[in-house]
Amino acid sequence: MKKIKRALISVYDKTNLTNLLKTLNKYNVEILSSGGTCKEINRLGFNCIEVSNYTNFPEILDGRVKTLNPKIHGGILMKRNNKFHKQESKENKFFEIDLVVVNFYPFERTLEKTKNHKNIIENIDIGGPAMVRSAAKNYNDVAVITQTSQYHSLIDQLKRFDCSTTLSLREQLSAEAFASTSSYDSIISNYFNKRLKNNFPKKKIFSFNLVEKLRYGENPHQQSSIYANGKLGLKQLNGKELSYNNYNDIFAALRISKSLSKNKGTAIIKHTNPCGVSNEPNQINSFKSALKSDPVSAFGGVVSCNFKIKKKIAIEINKIFFEIIISKGFDKDSLKIFKTRKNLRIIDASKIMDEDDLNYVNNYNSLLLQTSDNSEFLAKNFKVVSKIKPSSETLKNLIFAFNISRFVKSNAIVLTKGRSTLGIGSGQSSRLDSCKIAIDKLKKFHPDVKGEILAASDAFFPFVDGLETLVQSGVTAVIQPSGSIRDKEIIKYANETGTVLVFSKTRHFKH
Amino acid sequence: MKKIKRALISVYDKTNLTNLLKTLNKYNVEILSSGGTCKEINRLGFNCIEVSNYTNFPEILDGRVKTLNPKIHGGILMKRNNKFHKQESKENKFFEIDLVVVNFYPFERTLEKTKNHKNIIENIDIGGPAMVRSAAKNYNDVAVITQTSQYHSLIDQLKRFDCSTTLSLREQLSAEAFASTSSYDSIISNYFNKRLKNNFPKKKIFSFNLVEKLRYGENPHQQSSIYANGKLGLKQLNGKELSYNNYNDIFAALRISKSLSKNKGTAIIKHTNPCGVSNEPNQINSFKSALKSDPVSAFGGVVSCNFKIKKKIAIEINKIFFEIIISKGFDKDSLKIFKTRKNLRIIDASKIMDEDDLNYVNNYNSLLLQTSDNSEFLAKNFKVVSKIKPSSETLKNLIFAFNISRFVKSNAIVLTKGRSTLGIGSGQSSRLDSCKIAIDKLKKFHPDVKGEILAASDAFFPFVDGLETLVQSGVTAVIQPSGSIRDKEIIKYANETGTVLVFSKTRHFKH
Repeated sequence: MKKIKRALISVYDKTNLTNLLKTLNKYNVEILSSGGTCKEINRLGFNCIEVSNYTNFPEILDGRVKTLNPKIHGGILMKRNNKFHKQESKENKFFEIDLVVVNFYPFERTLEKTKNHKNIIENIDIGGPAMVRSAAKNYNDVAVITQTSQYHSLIDQLKRFDCSTTLSLREQLSAEAFASTSSYDSIISNYFNKRLKNNFPKKKIFSFNLVEKLRYGENPHQQSSIYANGKLGLKQLNGKELSYNNYNDIFAALRISKSLSKNKGTAIIKHTNPCGVSNEPNQINSFKSALKSDPVSAFGGVVSCNFKIKKKIAIEINKIFFEIIISKGFDKDSLKIFKTRKNLRIIDASKIMDEDDLNYVNNYNSLLLQTSDNSEFLAKNFKVVSKIKPSSETLKNLIFAFNISRFVKSNAIVLTKGRSTLGIGSGQSSRLDSCKIAIDKLKKFHPDVKGEILAASDAFFPFVDGLETLVQSGVTAVIQPSGSIRDKEIIKYANETGTVLVFSKTRHFKH
Repeated sequence: MKKIKRALISVYDKTNLTNLLKTLNKYNVEILSSGGTCKEINRLGFNCIEVSNYTNFPEILDGRVKTLNPKIHGGILMKRNNKFHKQESKENKFFEIDLVVVNFYPFERTLEKTKNHKNIIENIDIGGPAMVRSAAKNYNDVAVITQTSQYHSLIDQLKRFDCSTTLSLREQLSAEAFASTSSYDSIISNYFNKRLKNNFPKKKIFSFNLVEKLRYGENPHQQSSIYANGKLGLKQLNGKELSYNNYNDIFAALRISKSLSKNKGTAIIKHTNPCGVSNEPNQINSFKSALKSDPVSAFGGVVSCNFKIKKKIAIEINKIFFEIIISKGFDKDSLKIFKTRKNLRIIDASKIMDEDDLNYVNNYNSLLLQTSDNSEFLAKNFKVVSKIKPSSETLKNLIFAFNISRFVKSNAIVLTKGRSTLGIGSGQSSRLDSCKIAIDKLKKFHPDVKGEILAASDAFFPFVDGLETLVQSGVTAVIQPSGSIRDKEIIKYANETGTVLVFSKTRHFKH
């Protein structure tokens, strides 16, 4: 337990000060403060001592230097049970500061508001983090508050323990203080790196804020939480709380939906892989086609509609058991329909944040960091290499199929007709196996399909066998990156069988 | 361009100071310094002014407060082209400090050396980060050096530009300075969180150091780098440089190898999934069995031997085309054999770092953070639910199969005999499909297999159909977590067909 006799308050965010000041005042805590905070404290009807009066050194450089003073830092950092420190404090006229309440210049909010570099730089707080770090280091004697959300637990202890705090609270506050300074500087460093166009600096720092603790992780014996950098932008309107796997599937679904035509199309996800996607312009048809692609896998899956859901389509969707429905909003009627299922998770994702330019996977304390695979597909970049040329409509449909292949775990084969999938083969170490899986789905769920059947492969065919399997099962046009030493054989086979073959050039592995 | 007339040097790591001091001395730069650094500068034969003489304030609190002084921070933070700042500098007797050379108390190294909390806390640097942050904020006028590795580029510019630095260098140094302070505090914050047993704090910060830039990412149009927290512990002995996908496969392989018996067993990986694993005690047999599991997928894959590779097994491995061979060391003969393949990547992983307790995936600027799925399997936790009981050997073999299933992307079905896989079905949205894929491999690559064939499923069977498919194809014993509403039906089917059925309780989804 440590009693608070003197506090230093220097805050940019001045909300909720009154309660804290009342409590400190009740116990006759002396308050040091500077500039705007001091004025605000007076305005609220409390006394405080200007830091410059305490230090006998003026505020200089337009406020750049106010508290960077040995009398401030000595008062924070001195060990209360150390005779020599006490002696030095007497000789050099600095006094114990037992509580430091500081929040920083709003660097991050400034970034959101302006692109003016000078203004941004001016919002880098120097004095604040220095005091916070001193106090956090000396948490044995000093309590440090860095967020207005912490006032509550501080006030609580002061009232319970006659103006004292527990070591346990002070240590917790110290941990949060260092997280706060670290996070603050990571945002500054990332801002500089963005300016310098350096995606891969020597030190890469990621800072995340807790969104919510999850019941468990990928499996029930794993603990888990979800964090975000900014707001997630997902609004849950109904159903059980989201799980780790729910979130993972939701993001996989949204990534596909975002790649479809504006306000069109449906994607259905199971175990992070799409089991059906359709970009049919008619909303209900797009749902029905996506479902028909693999209705067995779709059971208990995640549906993502790239448009606002209304009554008619809600009735269709509601015929099937899904775990999650995602959409760009819901009308009243559709919500009424869905809410009859108490557990059904309904997610409004109309405000989902933008995808980051970088993504990463972690392994063994390492990080594989890369720019995201979000290149746009342009018809002019695709090369028709077969004698038979696709119509412009077929080419567009091939590009749709190829786009879906990049959201499927490698090796990926996607069979389509028009703007809907007919069969998806995923996650195989052999491309031939992925071809077979996709063909199996085609035969099982679309036994009577007629007309053009298209296939996309996320990477080249190493042998002719994969293409053979596809063509022999009715595929009429194929898109794939090319790059195999057997490309010539593959072109030859396409020409012999009258198959359209398009080289996309870009590979889209996803693991 | 900014000329350096006065420098402040305060370094814990005093290596390579001489060259820097020589250059500064050549241009008559005045040097301020404190404590140990000042002594070292004198010892090296150069002059410096003690900070306390400059500030007229003594070093206090056993060195806790030396440079936290407005005359220091004023000198760093003042805008050189601002009349009022100049006026204040005159009035308050502080002078322009144009270069700040600081490195911090070695907090991280202290953590490695001691568990003494007081000692660790004492190694939190306060003054250093404050000066670095002031200098980095004022990079328009001030150069800041935070790593001894930066001396070279500074000296280079001083010599080229008559003791001046470019704005571009100063901005780069500033970015690195904020990364350095952020990283420093992230380590402190993580240390506190570990002490407080808080895996999921409100702010979670990850700091990584660049290991190397990679030629490209998961695909050629993506840029990429690998980062690590500490040393990776991988030593490449031969072959082309490692790619993003190589690293990803290597870690997937090592994760499996680490789970096998000490110095036994082989795993073969393709597209991050195992295509064959064997824990046979005989090393050569383990390789042959792992290969036989799916020789088609193994082609061009990653082999990981959980033992030191010697000549005999090297001859066997060398018969097949692999991209990467990983092992706990190689003897001379084996290296000679492998090095005949110029491109073959040979990795000594005997010093691989420990896996972290936490792992995460990122999506849309969010992070799903969870404790790693590294629970140990103990026979006593598994429950035999069929009438027919497995022998203790069969139970151990079932546990081997179940262990492999957790390294396979869900839905995962692993068929085994003894301690070797016979077929692996991975990455399907329907469990039945994974059963079929595994059975297809069994039939294709082990048409004549006899005796007990075991199956493991990473999650429960939602219907009887998956189990049916397995049993009808010759599977005699099955291990799975249980938890389906149809568990009773499934037990009934096992009993009707004389199949051993074991419930493992824990699920092992992996996506």
